[in-house]
Parts: sequence; structure tokens; C-alpha cells
Amino acid sequence: MTEVGVSDPLLAEGLAKIADEVDRAFDALLPVPEDARARLIEAMRYAAIGGGKRLRPLLLTAVAEMYGVVREAAIRAAIAIESIHVYSLIHDDLPCMDDDSLRHGKPTVHKAFDEATAVLAGDSLLSFAFEVLGDPAVSADPFTRIELVQALGHASGAQGMAGGQMMDLVAETSEFDLQTVTRLQQLKTGALLGAAVEMGAILGRVQPEGRAHLRGYARDIGLAFQIADDLIDHEGNAEVAGKAVGKDAAAGKETFVSLLGPDRAREQARMLVEQAIGHLSQHGKEADLLRAVARYIIERDH
Amino acid sequence: MTEVGVSDPLLAEGLAKIADEVDRAFDALLPVPEDARARLIEAMRYAAIGGGKRLRPLLLTAVAEMYGVVREAAIRAAIAIESIHVYSLIHDDLPCMDDDSLRHGKPTVHKAFDEATAVLAGDSLLSFAFEVLGDPAVSADPFTRIELVQALGHASGAQGMAGGQMMDLVAETSEFDLQTVTRLQQLKTGALLGAAVEMGAILGRVQPEGRAHLRGYARDIGLAFQIADDLIDHEGNAEVAGKAVGKDAAAGKETFVSLLGPDRAREQARMLVEQAIGHLSQHGKEADLLRAVARYIIERDH
Repeated sequence: MTEVGVSDPLLAEGLAKIADEVDRAFDALLPVPEDARARLIEAMRYAAIGGGKRLRPLLLTAVAEMYGVVREAAIRAAIAIESIHVYSLIHDDLPCMDDDSLRHGKPTVHKAFDEATAVLAGDSLLSFAFEVLGDPAVSADPFTRIELVQALGHASGAQGMAGGQMMDLVAETSEFDLQTVTRLQQLKTGALLGAAVEMGAILGRVQPEGRAHLRGYARDIGLAFQIADDLIDHEGNAEVAGKAVGKDAAAGKETFVSLLGPDRAREQARMLVEQAIGHLSQHGKEADLLRAVARYIIERDH
Repeated sequence: MTEVGVSDPLLAEGLAKIADEVDRAFDALLPVPEDARARLIEAMRYAAIGGGKRLRPLLLTAVAEMYGVVREAAIRAAIAIESIHVYSLIHDDLPCMDDDSLRHGKPTVHKAFDEATAVLAGDSLLSFAFEVLGDPAVSADPFTRIELVQALGHASGAQGMAGGQMMDLVAETSEFDLQTVTRLQQLKTGALLGAAVEMGAILGRVQPEGRAHLRGYARDIGLAFQIADDLIDHEGNAEVAGKAVGKDAAAGKETFVSLLGPDRAREQARMLVEQAIGHLSQHGKEADLLRAVARYIIERDH
């Protein structure tokens, strides 16, 4: 099982491997109970299993592997961050938010179940993320676990992803400049991608200097990722996106593409990817997967 | 500033004190930023500051005080659990859930702001809870902090509060028996009340035997609390409830009152309170506040 359209064999293998591992871990950690909670767990499983590129788990485990972290521990931490990502998609798709009916090519949770169940499934995945990080299976060292909690808590809340989502809502009725759109995207998408790299570094007990380079890498690919997303939305291929496209323009939102134009936006994304790879210069072959991820991020629409 | 209608002076003082401390801590920990996230933080503050009895913070700090925990540390942990409680109210009130427009005598968050902001404010308070527990201000000992994270994560997710909320949704279209309603309420309300006591015990490094007694206390008051809530809903005094009443019957939900009748329900609640107080028999005066809370729980509607 390899990812369609991924030319780099190392990346193709990495994507297929992590997709399988994440699916199996969610399956094992979310058994369906034999009571009235079954519907809730089924909704969580519906959203969490079998969809998405698993980019955050890939980043987290790629960094962890560079520093010799046991694979099972890294997968547990990856489940935590992916749970946050999945919850955010469930809530983002709600009628009162983006009102989307399609996600990863299948009906969104509130369409397949109902709105109340979608709200609760998102909430439960959010709690689940931190429950997973509390468990010693992530690390026998409580200090490592609490560092992971801090990193993920900060990245997911009002000072991170949710704050970015709020700015995104405000963007529909405001004229944002490039600086504000950059800040919005750094929070909305960048914070969690950054947390993925950071959590890998926490597990690997990476020293401050190494962490600073990894943070630079994460910041650059986060922004490149969002520019690529804007380009996909602008170019409007719903099949590639696996979701509705052309929505930003329809909602009157400023994006990197509307502010820079598609050509400069594409050029900017390419430059960021080069810069991201530059942050890995002190690493050898062991960072090849991170380099491949960086390149992949702007090639998703081809 | 003392709570109206609370006859026990120790409890009246405790309620007034914790209300003030919780308000001040939320105010300090949730400063409004000068960017487009302001609306999100304002919604979080609107829901978190100046409302509710602060029962969970009272329980947590009362247990912590029995074991000599520094007050500031206990307040931090109390902020975490109250954030979970407040987020659950925001999401519970949403149109797709209970569709309430009044909470603590003021418009619900989605009425005062909008639905999308209410979803995000709830999500952000959930993340915030764990961010607070990750911070060394709760405890210098990372093991204590991670134990708190585990307790709160477990109590708030699908195996706790959110699972109970799901059962509550299913209850509208199912015939639940007394056992299932008991299970539902143990999850929906009991899990978080239990976590409040447990978190106080974690901070106080209470030994297993002492914890077992405190768990018994928490379990009993949790159930008594819900029976009292059902009685308030049944008797229909919206002013006392601070929210819409008579909704359970309208929604066709079985409750303790519908299953037992009001008289037996009241008797059951009284028995549970006596039993809860019995779990504190090895403690002297230092547990008087917990005893007062137990009695208060079924006197709220008088």
C-alpha cells in the first residue's frame, strides 16, 4: 500500500507505514463499548480511522526516529496530536463553521451521524488526546509526558490552532493584510505542525540548539503548507483536495493567493521549502524523510 | 459577599471565597489579546467569569486543604477542572444540543456571541484546562501534574462526561431503566465531581485507603446532585435553576424523578448524602466543609 502520486520512494513508504500504524493504534485505543456510548465512539472512529495524509504523525515520528525513540512511544504521541487534528476537522466542518459535507472524500461526521454527535465526538477526541499523553505508554518519564501535554495544550488552544480558527472567522468580514494572514495561518495550521516536530524532539530529548533548527524547519513548512492549500483552493480541484474548493474567494477571505497572486505565492512556497531544508543542514541521511516531507508539501496539488 | 440562601456559615464563606478566587484566576490567566483572537478570549471569559456555584473548585480545594496543599496550587488545578465544566455548558447549550438561551441567568454564549464562536470558545477552554495542568504553577512535581492530566482526561472524555452526554442524547429516543439512568448520570455529572475530589487527593498525595473513602464520598454526592437536579427540573423553578426547566419531561427523557417518583427520589438523595458523610468518618473538623457541601447539594432547591 503506497500513496498514489508520491514520487519519492522514501516518502511513499513513510506515508503508507504511518497511515497503517495510526489506523491500527486508533482501532486498538478506541474499542466500541456495549452501551449507549457506542454511537459516540463510532463517530470518533469514523473520523479518526482511514482518512487523511497523517502528516502530523509522520512529522512527529520522523523526528523521533532521528533521535532513536522507540517506535511504539512515538506512535502514541502521534495518536494524541492526530486526535487534535481530527477533532478540529470535525468541528470545522459543522454547519455553524465551514458547513462542509465532504471530508477525505466521504460525508462529514455531522452528515454521517448528526450535529450533536459531531460536537461530542470532537470534544471527546480533544480529551482523548491528553488522556493518551498522560499514559506511561508514551514515556516512562513523567517529565517527558508533561512536556508533551504543555506543547500540545499550547498549540491547540486559543494561543494556537483555535485562535487561528477564530481569526479565520473574523477574516470573512475584515480586510486582512499579508502580515495578519501570515499570523492567522501560523496559528491555524502552523501551530499544530510545529507541535508535531516539537513533540518528536521532546521524546528524543533534543538539546536546545537542535530544537531551534527543528522549529525553524516546522515554521517554514507550516507556512508553505498553507500557501499550497490556498493554491489548491484557488485552482479548484475538489478531487485532489478531497473537500469543497473555491470557498475562500466565495467567503471573501484574503489568502496568500489573493494577496500575492498565484505565481508569487507558488514562488514563496518554494523558497520556504528550500529554507526549511536548510534548517536540516547539520543532519545527514537520517533527516531525508523530513526533507522529502518538505518537498511533498508543495507538490500535493500536482 | 456571601451566597444567598446558604444557611451553613462555613459553606457560605467557602462558596464566596472560591467564587472570588476562581474569578480572579480566570481573569489573570485569560488576558484579551490585541488581535482578531480577542473575540474568542472574550467569549471564554464571558462563560468562565462571574457565574456558577464553583462546586468543582470548592470540592477540589476543600480536599486539598485537608491535606495541607498550598492554596495557589489548588486554585490552579481548580481552574483546570472548572474550564472543563464551563466548556461542557457552552457546548451543551448549543442549538444542536439542548438549545438553551439562558445560563446562570444571562444569555448563553452562542446567543451573546454566535454559534461558531461558542464552539471555538468551548474547544479552547478544553485545551486550556490541560495547558494549565501542564504548568509548574500547579505542582513542581511533574508526576503530580501528569496524574492530574490523566484524572481530568479520563473524567472529561468518552469514558466520562462526554460519554454521559452521548447517553443523554440517546435517552431522548430510548426507554432507559434505573440502572442505565444511574450509569448515565455517573458519567455525565459524577465523573467530573469525582475528578474534583480525586485531583484534590492527588495534590495532597493522599494514600490509597484515604482515596477510596474520598471516592465513595464523591460517588454518593454525584448521584445525589443529579437527583436534586432532576427534582429542580421537575418542580420547575427557573429562577432557582438559573436555566430553562421542565425540559426532561418535554424531551421524553427518563430521570430519577420519572422512574422513582419525586418522594422516593428525594428520600434516595437524602440517603446518599448521609452515606457520603459516612465516608468521612475517619476525619475530624477538617472535613466539615465537605460535609456541608454534601448537605448543600440536596438543599439547592429550597
